[in-house]
Amino acid sequence: MRPQDLIEKKRDGFVHTPEEIAFLIRGYTHDEIPDYQMSAWLMAAFLRGLDENETRALVEEMLHSGEVLAHPDVPLPKVDKHSTGGVGDKTSLVIAPAAAACGVAVPMISGRALAHTGGTLDKLESIPGFRTALSLDEFRSVLKRCGLALIGQTREIAPADRKLYALRDLTATVPHPSFMCASIMSKKMAEGIDGLVLDVKFGAGAFMKEFDDARSLAATMIDVGRKLGKRVSALLTDMNQPLGRWVGNAVETREAISVLHGNLKGDFAELCIELSAHMLVVGGVTQDPDNARRSIRGAIESGEALERFRRVIKAQGGDAGVCDEPDRLPGAKHSRVIIAERSGYVDEIAADEIGRIVMDWGGGRRRLEDAIDYGAGVELHAKRGDRVDRGEPLATAYYNDEGPADALCNRLQAAYRIAEDEPVARPLVREVL
Amino acid sequence: MRPQDLIEKKRDGFVHTPEEIAFLIRGYTHDEIPDYQMSAWLMAAFLRGLDENETRALVEEMLHSGEVLAHPDVPLPKVDKHSTGGVGDKTSLVIAPAAAACGVAVPMISGRALAHTGGTLDKLESIPGFRTALSLDEFRSVLKRCGLALIGQTREIAPADRKLYALRDLTATVPHPSFMCASIMSKKMAEGIDGLVLDVKFGAGAFMKEFDDARSLAATMIDVGRKLGKRVSALLTDMNQPLGRWVGNAVETREAISVLHGNLKGDFAELCIELSAHMLVVGGVTQDPDNARRSIRGAIESGEALERFRRVIKAQGGDAGVCDEPDRLPGAKHSRVIIAERSGYVDEIAADEIGRIVMDWGGGRRRLEDAIDYGAGVELHAKRGDRVDRGEPLATAYYNDEGPADALCNRLQAAYRIAEDEPVARPLVREVL
Repeated sequence: MRPQDLIEKKRDGFVHTPEEIAFLIRGYTHDEIPDYQMSAWLMAAFLRGLDENETRALVEEMLHSGEVLAHPDVPLPKVDKHSTGGVGDKTSLVIAPAAAACGVAVPMISGRALAHTGGTLDKLESIPGFRTALSLDEFRSVLKRCGLALIGQTREIAPADRKLYALRDLTATVPHPSFMCASIMSKKMAEGIDGLVLDVKFGAGAFMKEFDDARSLAATMIDVGRKLGKRVSALLTDMNQPLGRWVGNAVETREAISVLHGNLKGDFAELCIELSAHMLVVGGVTQDPDNARRSIRGAIESGEALERFRRVIKAQGGDAGVCDEPDRLPGAKHSRVIIAERSGYVDEIAADEIGRIVMDWGGGRRRLEDAIDYGAGVELHAKRGDRVDRGEPLATAYYNDEGPADALCNRLQAAYRIAEDEPVARPLVREVL
Repeated sequence: MRPQDLIEKKRDGFVHTPEEIAFLIRGYTHDEIPDYQMSAWLMAAFLRGLDENETRALVEEMLHSGEVLAHPDVPLPKVDKHSTGGVGDKTSLVIAPAAAACGVAVPMISGRALAHTGGTLDKLESIPGFRTALSLDEFRSVLKRCGLALIGQTREIAPADRKLYALRDLTATVPHPSFMCASIMSKKMAEGIDGLVLDVKFGAGAFMKEFDDARSLAATMIDVGRKLGKRVSALLTDMNQPLGRWVGNAVETREAISVLHGNLKGDFAELCIELSAHMLVVGGVTQDPDNARRSIRGAIESGEALERFRRVIKAQGGDAGVCDEPDRLPGAKHSRVIIAERSGYVDEIAADEIGRIVMDWGGGRRRLEDAIDYGAGVELHAKRGDRVDRGEPLATAYYNDEGPADALCNRLQAAYRIAEDEPVARPLVREVL
């Protein structure tokens, strides 16, 4: 086999055998196939597509490019959740401890903020002392002791994905469903899980703007996961406005802690309950989603979920005191309130723009090596569908860097659209697959 | 501008500005854009296409990546011919001296054998002592003294093409009309010519198997050449059977010399006259193709064309004695005759297979660095449409390497298809654009 012959095959729209996919991925991971041939193949596959079998072969090769964990000493169903990325999405911080409190183990490997979206690792690292860069041995040990563990990708997990993602990022081959599926699933399948709940987001604040694209990605990932013997379900969720009332790192951690304290109102708490309830179902704890929802609410209201969160923070070196004194989290020196310039209903809050505003204030990254200002954030007083009167506060910006404040506050104002009429409500969870 | 944004633009089917094409080609030529981004762009452009303006911008950037020659001290119209490559195609050796003898100057930069097709440089180098690797100063000087000069591509000519071609070869992005046009035209336009005749071949022995593809490539090249202010015409010629009676290096040189001696029968001589007559027309020597054909025949029959060939051989260090004693060309130690196994008409002679047989006997290259056996070759006694009786000779193989002789003679036999009925004749020149 020669790489150029496989590039030609895909260029001309033919379907690869699993052996051909293996040849490409192994050759690339072992530096036998150069970047320039891989990127030509990536572009050919981007434009010609990969079918179900090719996508599955891609996932399996990327998965087996590294270590595939198992947790034989954890006698519980192992379940994780993965989100395709959004704005204000801090669900992991609630659902991992809540699900763990209800009898599943959650070996969660998460990512960082990139582009306009936030990252679970950065939110966790806003907790003083919290370490996400654990070794796999530490990861297994924390999981065993706490029923959950929250770390970043390690060198051992799916190295093919790491190398391919860097290349895709520079060759305009990121947003393709087969590649996204392979990148996500190869890492998730390596965690040693029995079941997975996917939160596939669509809308302005998501990577997939269109519902149909998100649904097709979800279907592909479910197919791949199930054929690998895992129980997988997917929730297609609306990401047109930010999730919850806060966007930023420390402020989102604070909001998650507030939900763990039993404040279960609003879209963010609703999504936490839906996702963690589905984790119990795919974990086989119960067959009935309503039962599962009750269990999760119970674990939160009883304080058991928060207690799990305290334990995992402590196990990973963090200051668990933030759970009871959230002011120990990083704060911001300045704040400014944005008010409604007219009366009416909040019709849209541009989620991607809110994400970029927080990023531009230091709360996110342009490049992976950028430092993060954990204290920067935005509080949304009014959300979509809320009635506001002229002069009422819409949002408050919290920041340390005064330089861009005028420009960013103007953008924050412009991210709100006020309309005469009350908008038609949109369901948060549009479909469950 | 970032390369990844331009890759994305082409990936999504948008049209580049000339500035964007310039950014890509200059950046790549100066090692500012890495191979892996260029190959992703090449594949995107291969699959999405480049329109007329993009193709022209590509040609112009590649042309101006290197030196563009001028010949102010040669007071004649400068004209060249380019063939897209075939089997048995030794026309350059006849038409360059013939056209030069009729009042145009021919500054010809040619290529080498690659894949199943022959190369003008290799045929010329079968002449003892003949040097094709002249400096540009020598090239200009030979052109001035002889009215023609026959060299290979130099480092100074279109370096962007040299770098891109190597990348395309390894990334399955060679056979695209815009890229082929850019590769050919950037080199030809750099020769310092006023006019160009294109021999665009179609059929089994050509790179373009289909007439329509060849026609579309011809139209693109004509458009580009004319917009660059050159007179360009194109002949679409049939390459389903080898051109002429001989395939190989020294044997083709011998056949070309035979035509220059006045043997004007057969398809090869016919194509020589057609192409060189069109060179006189695009050079403005005459408007009337029939006049031009008569001039060319006259120059050959008078010996003037052969005399030009002697002069250029001598000027480029070769043994001009081969023109009168062809046995001074390299020969072959062995020969074997292939005979007809049944009576009938020659229906097809698979040109690509004949080319590969000669290559496998050492007459061509698999890689650019391979050495060539100039003496290896095939003589075709019967051509398409000829009546043959069982036992009559079809072809003779001449070779030095006895190792593959049995296998190659079997393939030579199989390359001939004999049919009951006389095949319908196909015109050699199907269309002139």
